[in-house]
Amino acid sequence: MSEVVEQPAGRRARGGGGAARRAERTAVRVEFARYIERNIPNLEILNEEALEIIEANAETVLEEIGVNFVENPAALALWREAGADVQGERVRIPRGLARELCKTAPSTFTQHARNPERNVVIGGKNLVLAPVYGPPFVRDLAGGRRYATIADFRNFVKLGQMSKYLHHSGGTVCEPTDVPVNKRHLDMLHAHMTLSDKPYMGSVTEPSRAADSVEMSKILFGEQFVDENTVMTSLVNINSPLTFDATMMGALEVYAKANQACIISPFIVGGAMAPVSVAGTLTQVLAEVLAGVAYSQLIRKGAPVIFGAFVTSIDMNSGAPTFGTPEAAQITLGAGQLARRLGLPYRSAGAFCGSKLPDAQAAYETANTLNIGLLSGVNFMLHACGWLEGGLVSSYEKYVMDADQLGTLHRMAAGIDMSANGQAMDAIREVGPGGHYLGCAHTQANFKTAFWKTDLLDYKPFETWEEEGARDTVALAAARVAKMLGDYQPPAIEPGVVEALDEYVAKKKASMPDAFM
Amino acid sequence: MSEVVEQPAGRRARGGGGAARRAERTAVRVEFARYIERNIPNLEILNEEALEIIEANAETVLEEIGVNFVENPAALALWREAGADVQGERVRIPRGLARELCKTAPSTFTQHARNPERNVVIGGKNLVLAPVYGPPFVRDLAGGRRYATIADFRNFVKLGQMSKYLHHSGGTVCEPTDVPVNKRHLDMLHAHMTLSDKPYMGSVTEPSRAADSVEMSKILFGEQFVDENTVMTSLVNINSPLTFDATMMGALEVYAKANQACIISPFIVGGAMAPVSVAGTLTQVLAEVLAGVAYSQLIRKGAPVIFGAFVTSIDMNSGAPTFGTPEAAQITLGAGQLARRLGLPYRSAGAFCGSKLPDAQAAYETANTLNIGLLSGVNFMLHACGWLEGGLVSSYEKYVMDADQLGTLHRMAAGIDMSANGQAMDAIREVGPGGHYLGCAHTQANFKTAFWKTDLLDYKPFETWEEEGARDTVALAAARVAKMLGDYQPPAIEPGVVEALDEYVAKKKASMPDAFM
Repeated sequence: MSEVVEQPAGRRARGGGGAARRAERTAVRVEFARYIERNIPNLEILNEEALEIIEANAETVLEEIGVNFVENPAALALWREAGADVQGERVRIPRGLARELCKTAPSTFTQHARNPERNVVIGGKNLVLAPVYGPPFVRDLAGGRRYATIADFRNFVKLGQMSKYLHHSGGTVCEPTDVPVNKRHLDMLHAHMTLSDKPYMGSVTEPSRAADSVEMSKILFGEQFVDENTVMTSLVNINSPLTFDATMMGALEVYAKANQACIISPFIVGGAMAPVSVAGTLTQVLAEVLAGVAYSQLIRKGAPVIFGAFVTSIDMNSGAPTFGTPEAAQITLGAGQLARRLGLPYRSAGAFCGSKLPDAQAAYETANTLNIGLLSGVNFMLHACGWLEGGLVSSYEKYVMDADQLGTLHRMAAGIDMSANGQAMDAIREVGPGGHYLGCAHTQANFKTAFWKTDLLDYKPFETWEEEGARDTVALAAARVAKMLGDYQPPAIEPGVVEALDEYVAKKKASMPDAFM
Repeated sequence: MSEVVEQPAGRRARGGGGAARRAERTAVRVEFARYIERNIPNLEILNEEALEIIEANAETVLEEIGVNFVENPAALALWREAGADVQGERVRIPRGLARELCKTAPSTFTQHARNPERNVVIGGKNLVLAPVYGPPFVRDLAGGRRYATIADFRNFVKLGQMSKYLHHSGGTVCEPTDVPVNKRHLDMLHAHMTLSDKPYMGSVTEPSRAADSVEMSKILFGEQFVDENTVMTSLVNINSPLTFDATMMGALEVYAKANQACIISPFIVGGAMAPVSVAGTLTQVLAEVLAGVAYSQLIRKGAPVIFGAFVTSIDMNSGAPTFGTPEAAQITLGAGQLARRLGLPYRSAGAFCGSKLPDAQAAYETANTLNIGLLSGVNFMLHACGWLEGGLVSSYEKYVMDADQLGTLHRMAAGIDMSANGQAMDAIREVGPGGHYLGCAHTQANFKTAFWKTDLLDYKPFETWEEEGARDTVALAAARVAKMLGDYQPPAIEPGVVEALDEYVAKKKASMPDAFM
């Protein structure tokens, strides 16, 4: 079973002066669970023959068709030097070269948090859970659907800090649309750094914003610490099919040079950015990741990267992306096998759904994806809570609903206790035919930790539930959101660090005019 | 991929006179999917060592503790004769004896339907889906929660007949509480036999009612056909822990003697009827099934039976059963491994939830269980749709919501197409870097069957969805229920058979006073 321990909300990596100690004494105690270490097998949906076919086809794609590195002469030069056939922006990679280059990428790395208790190890049998990323809208029961603001952003960071089963503060938990586009990243990073002590993601929307992320991290962790350690994992999408654009590659270059981690992630809506078939999509995903990871290692050998796969299918009637579908599940499982054979950490899955509301559709689709994510060997699950309406909306209620379900993944992953206590032969002997176990010694000794316990769902008798207002899950979740935001206290941080971050943000903002495009 | 074909609603096994032919010509054409044949691996959560420990412990339970066969002297005599140590009602079974007796039970059997197109093969890599069983209440959006009636029962049978991904009509789809307890089974069987042409379950609430089930089946199928074939699969619960009551065993005896199938199923709320640990519960489940299946083979060697496991955990605060939990998932996976090692078909999982409403909680819990059921190697899934509120309620809306999700299991189970068309290399070549797949030849050739398609969920653009009333899943489901009941037409059946069934029911009802206990 995963370790769930109560910890004071404030603990810092660096120093900790009088103010930090005082904050620690008065802080709310919040529970947190360590990242998941799987003690159960993955589901291997593809056999050896199928895997070899896909791997061979991916090499054919790289060799025959190649990939485009757009508006990026430096990348083309690096590829040419590495032995690729470069014509215009097209890079054709000889069979085996990309896979060979990938070998210097670590199979496992540690992302540090400012509270070392919140460090995460990404790779191997581990699963790290991070919240929704990217929605321009938010929704809650009281206020409905509306454009997200920086106030919403801060609320979601606070919910993440208070969520026991969330190991990571994430990145763009929603788009703060009330802040100029060219300055948003500063406020977002500031929020993650000061309102949470969990690990976080950096900006990728421009190379200069990635550079700001590194600079602000140096303020938080100290310059030398950032030079020597990975303190950010950032999301670099591939412009599928087979295209690497200059913006995303620019961010990757900044991070790889600084030894900071990137998820290199094909962004696939099957039928639009990839073939309508599962094996075809897996082939393209593998080719894209091979090229992207290889490129990261051309930038800096040993730079930490993650094999990403964002995959959905499409509704052929409307063209809308669909979520929680069996085809997406098969791709998620197959890509996990390909990632493990490549020796790379794997990012996929999430609390995906297409539904407009946090209703039954949302929950079916989400549970389908979360369960398959666990069994696919995913090491880093972005969007693990809060995702609504195909990623257009960050939902307050769905955030806490999903975050509660994440507890089931922890327990499931822990596997089955086969100790003498787990075998419970004494209990079966004590109770015997026709008895009941409620009062037996084994039950008394184990009942507190025997079963996963929801913090949200309703198990009350019908009559009690009805008297209390016959609330559905969304209503229960709305109450939980209010309670968590009410209970929230910031984790302790040295005032000097906050002042330095404030100053950096203010100076940067003052250095350029607002831009909203 | 599973075969989904359009079929006239009416096709009968026997004869088919002019009336049947006329009915056939005018019948609504309904789609149906064949039972699932898995082309993906199961998830093997227990390793060999763990399995051997549990199997050894189960033998110890049978040998040292034993099981009770209550108020059943004939059973005790059979056990004594077979070599068990019988003291009072306690039957202690020497190591290995029960497992040896189980060997005569078939690993696979066919349950015939009156329409042979609807026959199901239970066992092996197959999965047969049947609806909810047992709730005394129904709920729908318009009428709320209320006691179930025979009119509700008939509606649910009609929904089952119209549900593409449901292979089985089930049994007590709800309790018709307006019909006397001692006469309900007659009306329920009559409904399954006349309103559906899918396979069905018999009555188990008294041996005489099991006998009625056999007699009515003989009217439907012909006496000789029933003597020579299995036409019912009925649910025999074990009174866990370790107790076999006379009523359920009486039904088992009737069915086994008639070569009709039974699910022999421990009914476990973990912490009450079994230990709070997963391995302890698996041990007790295995011991109970070994004893029950062995007993079925003492009644008649070769009688078809299914290894059942109804498992939930308990909320230790309220004592309420909980569903969709990780502990239940682990038990479902482990019991599947134990069933396969015993060479028996396996029944477990279902659309389980504890929620009072078909809301997000219901859907999370249901999806958790459905997905694990597929990966556990379940061969017969009772309660695959319509289950609400811990089994107290059959929900109209949840029935069609769950039934839609069952389509995802079909597609998932079909595995990944590795043909040249599945590999889609031509598509990747045609589209190339930066293109899109919407119009390419491969997409055009495959898009109609490429993706599982919901009949219920909403994929519309936000604005359209809002204009159409911003409906949640329950509202969409209510509309689908109305449409399906409106479109329903009974499958063709010979009028003579219906008259004979009517006559049997009328005569039986007249032969005894009403009883409501």
